[in-house]
Amino acid sequence: MSYFDNIQTIKYEGKQSNNPLSFKFYNPDQVILGKTMREHLRFAIAYWHSFSANGSDPFGSGTMLRTWDKYDGMDLAKARVEACFELLNILDVDYFAFHDRDIAPEGSTLQETNRNLDEIVALIKDNMKSSGKKLLWNTANMFTNPRFVHGAATTNNADVFAYAAAQVKKALEHGKELGSENYVFWGGREGYETLLNTDLGLELDNLARFLHMAVDYAKEIGFDAQFLIEPKPKEPSKHQYDFDAATTLSFLQKYDLLPYFKLNLEANHATLAGHTFEHELRVARINGVLGSIDANQGDMLLGWDTDEFPTDLYATTLAMYEILLNEGGIGRGGVNFDAKVRRTSFEPVDVVYAHIAGMDSFARGLQVAAKLIEDRVFDNILDTRYASFKSGIGADIVSGKANFKTLEAYALQNSNNIVNQSGRLELIKATLNQYIINV
Amino acid sequence: MSYFDNIQTIKYEGKQSNNPLSFKFYNPDQVILGKTMREHLRFAIAYWHSFSANGSDPFGSGTMLRTWDKYDGMDLAKARVEACFELLNILDVDYFAFHDRDIAPEGSTLQETNRNLDEIVALIKDNMKSSGKKLLWNTANMFTNPRFVHGAATTNNADVFAYAAAQVKKALEHGKELGSENYVFWGGREGYETLLNTDLGLELDNLARFLHMAVDYAKEIGFDAQFLIEPKPKEPSKHQYDFDAATTLSFLQKYDLLPYFKLNLEANHATLAGHTFEHELRVARINGVLGSIDANQGDMLLGWDTDEFPTDLYATTLAMYEILLNEGGIGRGGVNFDAKVRRTSFEPVDVVYAHIAGMDSFARGLQVAAKLIEDRVFDNILDTRYASFKSGIGADIVSGKANFKTLEAYALQNSNNIVNQSGRLELIKATLNQYIINV
Amino acid sequence: MSYFDNIQTIKYEGKQSNNPLSFKFYNPDQVILGKTMREHLRFAIAYWHSFSANGSDPFGSGTMLRTWDKYDGMDLAKARVEACFELLNILDVDYFAFHDRDIAPEGSTLQETNRNLDEIVALIKDNMKSSGKKLLWNTANMFTNPRFVHGAATTNNADVFAYAAAQVKKALEHGKELGSENYVFWGGREGYETLLNTDLGLELDNLARFLHMAVDYAKEIGFDAQFLIEPKPKEPSKHQYDFDAATTLSFLQKYDLLPYFKLNLEANHATLAGHTFEHELRVARINGVLGSIDANQGDMLLGWDTDEFPTDLYATTLAMYEILLNEGGIGRGGVNFDAKVRRTSFEPVDVVYAHIAGMDSFARGLQVAAKLIEDRVFDNILDTRYASFKSGIGADIVSGKANFKTLEAYALQNSNNIVNQSGRLELIKATLNQYIINV
Amino acid sequence: MSYFDNIQTIKYEGKQSNNPLSFKFYNPDQVILGKTMREHLRFAIAYWHSFSANGSDPFGSGTMLRTWDKYDGMDLAKARVEACFELLNILDVDYFAFHDRDIAPEGSTLQETNRNLDEIVALIKDNMKSSGKKLLWNTANMFTNPRFVHGAATTNNADVFAYAAAQVKKALEHGKELGSENYVFWGGREGYETLLNTDLGLELDNLARFLHMAVDYAKEIGFDAQFLIEPKPKEPSKHQYDFDAATTLSFLQKYDLLPYFKLNLEANHATLAGHTFEHELRVARINGVLGSIDANQGDMLLGWDTDEFPTDLYATTLAMYEILLNEGGIGRGGVNFDAKVRRTSFEPVDVVYAHIAGMDSFARGLQVAAKLIEDRVFDNILDTRYASFKSGIGADIVSGKANFKTLEAYALQNSNNIVNQSGRLELIKATLNQYIINV
Repeated sequence: MSYFDNIQTIKYEGKQSNNPLSFKFYNPDQVILGKTMREHLRFAIAYWHSFSANGSDPFGSGTMLRTWDKYDGMDLAKARVEACFELLNILDVDYFAFHDRDIAPEGSTLQETNRNLDEIVALIKDNMKSSGKKLLWNTANMFTNPRFVHGAATTNNADVFAYAAAQVKKALEHGKELGSENYVFWGGREGYETLLNTDLGLELDNLARFLHMAVDYAKEIGFDAQFLIEPKPKEPSKHQYDFDAATTLSFLQKYDLLPYFKLNLEANHATLAGHTFEHELRVARINGVLGSIDANQGDMLLGWDTDEFPTDLYATTLAMYEILLNEGGIGRGGVNFDAKVRRTSFEPVDVVYAHIAGMDSFARGLQVAAKLIEDRVFDNILDTRYASFKSGIGADIVSGKANFKTLEAYALQNSNNIVNQSGRLELIKATLNQYIINV
Repeated sequence: MSYFDNIQTIKYEGKQSNNPLSFKFYNPDQVILGKTMREHLRFAIAYWHSFSANGSDPFGSGTMLRTWDKYDGMDLAKARVEACFELLNILDVDYFAFHDRDIAPEGSTLQETNRNLDEIVALIKDNMKSSGKKLLWNTANMFTNPRFVHGAATTNNADVFAYAAAQVKKALEHGKELGSENYVFWGGREGYETLLNTDLGLELDNLARFLHMAVDYAKEIGFDAQFLIEPKPKEPSKHQYDFDAATTLSFLQKYDLLPYFKLNLEANHATLAGHTFEHELRVARINGVLGSIDANQGDMLLGWDTDEFPTDLYATTLAMYEILLNEGGIGRGGVNFDAKVRRTSFEPVDVVYAHIAGMDSFARGLQVAAKLIEDRVFDNILDTRYASFKSGIGADIVSGKANFKTLEAYALQNSNNIVNQSGRLELIKATLNQYIINV
Repeated sequence: MSYFDNIQTIKYEGKQSNNPLSFKFYNPDQVILGKTMREHLRFAIAYWHSFSANGSDPFGSGTMLRTWDKYDGMDLAKARVEACFELLNILDVDYFAFHDRDIAPEGSTLQETNRNLDEIVALIKDNMKSSGKKLLWNTANMFTNPRFVHGAATTNNADVFAYAAAQVKKALEHGKELGSENYVFWGGREGYETLLNTDLGLELDNLARFLHMAVDYAKEIGFDAQFLIEPKPKEPSKHQYDFDAATTLSFLQKYDLLPYFKLNLEANHATLAGHTFEHELRVARINGVLGSIDANQGDMLLGWDTDEFPTDLYATTLAMYEILLNEGGIGRGGVNFDAKVRRTSFEPVDVVYAHIAGMDSFARGLQVAAKLIEDRVFDNILDTRYASFKSGIGADIVSGKANFKTLEAYALQNSNNIVNQSGRLELIKATLNQYIINV
Repeated sequence: MSYFDNIQTIKYEGKQSNNPLSFKFYNPDQVILGKTMREHLRFAIAYWHSFSANGSDPFGSGTMLRTWDKYDGMDLAKARVEACFELLNILDVDYFAFHDRDIAPEGSTLQETNRNLDEIVALIKDNMKSSGKKLLWNTANMFTNPRFVHGAATTNNADVFAYAAAQVKKALEHGKELGSENYVFWGGREGYETLLNTDLGLELDNLARFLHMAVDYAKEIGFDAQFLIEPKPKEPSKHQYDFDAATTLSFLQKYDLLPYFKLNLEANHATLAGHTFEHELRVARINGVLGSIDANQGDMLLGWDTDEFPTDLYATTLAMYEILLNEGGIGRGGVNFDAKVRRTSFEPVDVVYAHIAGMDSFARGLQVAAKLIEDRVFDNILDTRYASFKSGIGADIVSGKANFKTLEAYALQNSNNIVNQSGRLELIKATLNQYIINV
């Protein structure tokens, strides 16, 4: 049966096409900088938003019209698997990603919950085999169930910590079973509601203990996925421990976890933390931890995680620029649409339109970023701007030859000859506009 | 002569006093938890706000009526020194803090600039000797002069880097000369206007090089002040490198600078970064880097650094709570009023009123925080909340005995017996109100 | 039976009491400025937060432990009525407030829905009669059901408009039946998701039409409650039409609705709109439309409506100051706790603690505000500051005698003699602290 | 002499041009929807940003390299006039705008100040005559001088009110002298620092008195410019009275000023108030008060008015869409670049680059908006979405025939047949991207 109105596989028709059910920019086989778009972008569909969510918000019930909602329990879970693989085919997308609780309902005991999971994982495995689709990452949902009200790895309740450990253990096993290329930790409730009742030191120590156990167990079972941490500053917690890329780096360094983790960066989380998405990507890139991205966008006038499908071409261009400059590009990671159709876009076809919008926006971003690199637009700017560090006193600074005494001696002679150059921000932005339109 | 209307030294008169020129809560000799208020708080006056600033803002000229403004050049610089020591006496404050450019005007060459500085430093030293007042910290202003338009240690111009090095070298020498207890690095322009023209990796590497040079030079001249970095997320730069405590920790760890630096945390910078002040203090405390504080407050509905005098008793209470729990309290640091009277509070006496307001607010905060500690209010909450980690499976987690397999085994047996307790946030907040009023 | 652990009626025990189940500041019979605290404050309990909500958030399921949750359907609805009147008794609160959908479940048709409502309204009426408790206001929930996905009075679907009209018609009838003192319009989905598909002019015209129909129908049935509009800037809609007090005034003026409406102002909505709560109250007060308040508070570092119980004494003091200065005080309105216990405060007793916290905070605010008025603290400041408008050229300006030519003539003579006075903000804030502590 | 490096008049070279000193999209004579681009856009240069400002910010001195800075006093004022007309020629822009204090220095008395103004106004008039350039609007700066520390028309000091009146009287006379097409009121200090010392009612009454006097005087002297109020929510004041479009409408209605004023809306002010620019334009448009725009953009992660040159094509497209739909387009108003080059873009040529960037961005926005209108993209969406209000019950609602009783009767029959349609936001955004790229 079809869950998406028998929509046919979406084809590339070019930027002039009037067909809403076509790609205007995403041409999977087009080669850019030596790789196909498909290889660069490694798109993934997020199970939770497109198959498990119903459009509810804090003030309203679900609105989504979903053909699978006639089922419930394990039947519903199975129907969602079918719907997921149907959508992957419609969109010609290779990857998907899920939380354990997205794919199967909790049972009345952990044992039953795990059996439910095992059954659906087996079904997913069959579908993967027959379709050739792949799992970008899986993860454990340790924030929805009320037992996690005070956190999971950072709970004040040791029983909950143990439960969370059991849950991640199972998730790692399923990740291995499905050949998942990554495994993600997003700490939905790893944070605090108030410092007034929180032992911050113990909670962070426990989080590190938890992650070390995960590293050890993955090694033990031979699950070689890339581990990823996904920073977010707040929501649902008032303050979350993996606030942003830099905070997460600080944590990983302190607890000797840096060798085992990279970051899964999300656009909307970046802006909630007061950063641009490209800032977070750049910080990760220069620290060698750019692992994967959650592709979405926020509303800059709203203070919560709106998880909109990404359509801002400035953001997608600069995100793809960082990814192209990253060693190995997005590597084992991907461009995962952690994005939901608006509550007002409740028809099944909206899910297709929304993914087309996001894929085209990233494809266009890739085209523009690649051309900026080919034309050395930003490279030329940097070469000129930082030329003074290539020779003379600048080279001495970089090489470590200079110290405060030699620099003072130099400055005393040169203090009246300092000449700065304009940063040319406005011209650069006009150039970026030209590239976005002309490429 | 008097620069402050011949105001007499402010005395403690108690909380019922109607005298605006008296302390209502700050009683310097009152002993709390074994130390006097004076010893706990180590108040400092910020030279820049109270003596060098004029009340201008981006839309208006200076409004401040200052008796020393009849002077200019070095005469003005000298008058400001006298005014500073007069205010220290009026307020019975022991410490002050300054940037190099606050105390002496730039000359036409670096040599002349340094001579100006030397002359004023000698004058300050004389005043310190005769008054017994002390220097909490000094620092170098590397953001006002146009040469720093693209940064100082993170400039793209090696000549500017050299100039900055010479400036800090001189400042370290003056710090030693005046027996400064700390030395602060606030990177006013150490950040970027846009990533589009910025080599983030090189700039951060250079910042680390600069700080290592400073460490080396201080060691060379035997200047044993505590080095402090002051985080701020933005303003004047669009994005500053020392965004917050965690970001700064990440940087210090990466570049092996952690042994040499602590943090000077500012309330208004915390909130601009999306954190409460107590969050930043807590992060610093549990990482052993709580060095000193810049005491002020922002307007939560305004998006820039308003540097208001601190009067919010919730914030001062929770700040003092973290400081009291810090090993050694504020240590060599202090409570520095990096705060300015509003542009509309332009009379000299407003500077006195404002400091009284700030000192009383911190004194009250100290009283309340001490009582909360004596009564073990928060300690009891934590003891109860985290009890599960003291024995059984919780103790195994903390000791490192547990792993995913033992935890899963435990969880499989206990998954239906998990019981959480309320966090009692509303009751805790009501209790805090009682303490603020009753102490 | 008891739904709240057989907690006895909360008594006033004074500010030193250690009993968490006592009032520290709220002494209902204490007379302040000629009225009892009970009369000034007219506290109300919000049905939705305390009886219908379960602690779910966008990332997690309900956590609240509620004894009535063993029931469902109409039995649940009846149990909630009992629980509500039990809590009113425990807290000695006189008023409550509800949306239609809080008190009774929707049926499969509008007819059945209305029958459900009728049955529960009758039950509430009985309880009101026997207990003497009163209804502060009722309202219609036109945002939860998916039919309102595009708005109610501002929907693009005329059928939905009609449904909303029917719903409010019924609510007005029930308000009359229960003797409700006010009727509230909060436009949960009256706004837009995007301007790109919105006919702003038509939607606002329709909103005005809807409100005129409500005015007409209330008149027709002789329901003389005060109509109140509750502004909110965003959430759930991206942009809501009743953005803030001024926007709502503009709307009421344009559509000739000003005679029929006052405002129900909420603290957390104020801050989401970029205003302090006291600003919104002041704007309403000077325009004669201060009707009632929703007493809560937001987290200034979070961008959504957190609806926390109000504990900030600065906010409660300044809110009560505006209310005391309002002609007739809060009038037929009240202090309604549109506030919810944190998701982490899930035990029944937390609901009691939280209301105590809020009631005490408002009681303290009332005490402080009254003393500020008795001592003419702010009155004296205003008298002095604005004295120049009492005579001379200032009086001419106020009386309308002056014009640009007479003023220019005056200014040409006086341009060099203008003297301003300090606004004394820091001293005023210190004084406010003294009052909060000393009263 | 040349103040701008002898840059030649900028020509349109098309979107593929590599010449940074050319227009890529702005082709002044290209006809779009029956008018030339020049007629649609009516670009204006802001005197203050490009000729009077120096690049200083709260943390740093001026950086701008300006050839006219070798002069001072009235010589400087005259040089700036020459520079302004040179830039108008270089950019082929027809309009400029200024505050009184931008063009001439204050003297030691109001008389001298006015003489300075008269002299420069005469010089400007000569330049206008010889060049054919025109004045879009003038205004009075009543925020920079310390006398306005507590406001101008909303000051607490009647002498200051009188001074402000004299200043606006003179400005109106100069507006008439120069044939200014509009006159703007931006209340830089018309607001409050704190409500604690503010008589909000009196201040707003006085503001209305002031504006009525201005209306009367303009009429008296026969100055028929369109009066414009420019809303801004904050900065420099903590809270400004003309918060946003709706607040300003409310004020104008209350004080019977609506017939005399339209709005000058600024993009960066809109976002500081929590609105998109298109929201403010739409609100003004449907209320018939869209007068003119200040074209710039803010940084959505910064909380102050950054006044960046507009380069965001989404914003310029949606702004031009509203303007094209406005009756008479921008009318007597214009697209005024109230924008400043970054402090880091300090070379004279940056001013040219920046204006090119802004002009091209608005020209592209015009092209895209016009095509969206020609293709009826949004019109078709609205026609479909709101069709239910064209007939049947919907038509009855709009015509005023319906009331709560007829609507209830309808709803009782139809409550189970309500069908909503998706709002299609994601598809609409994808379509917008196509238009931005393809047009």
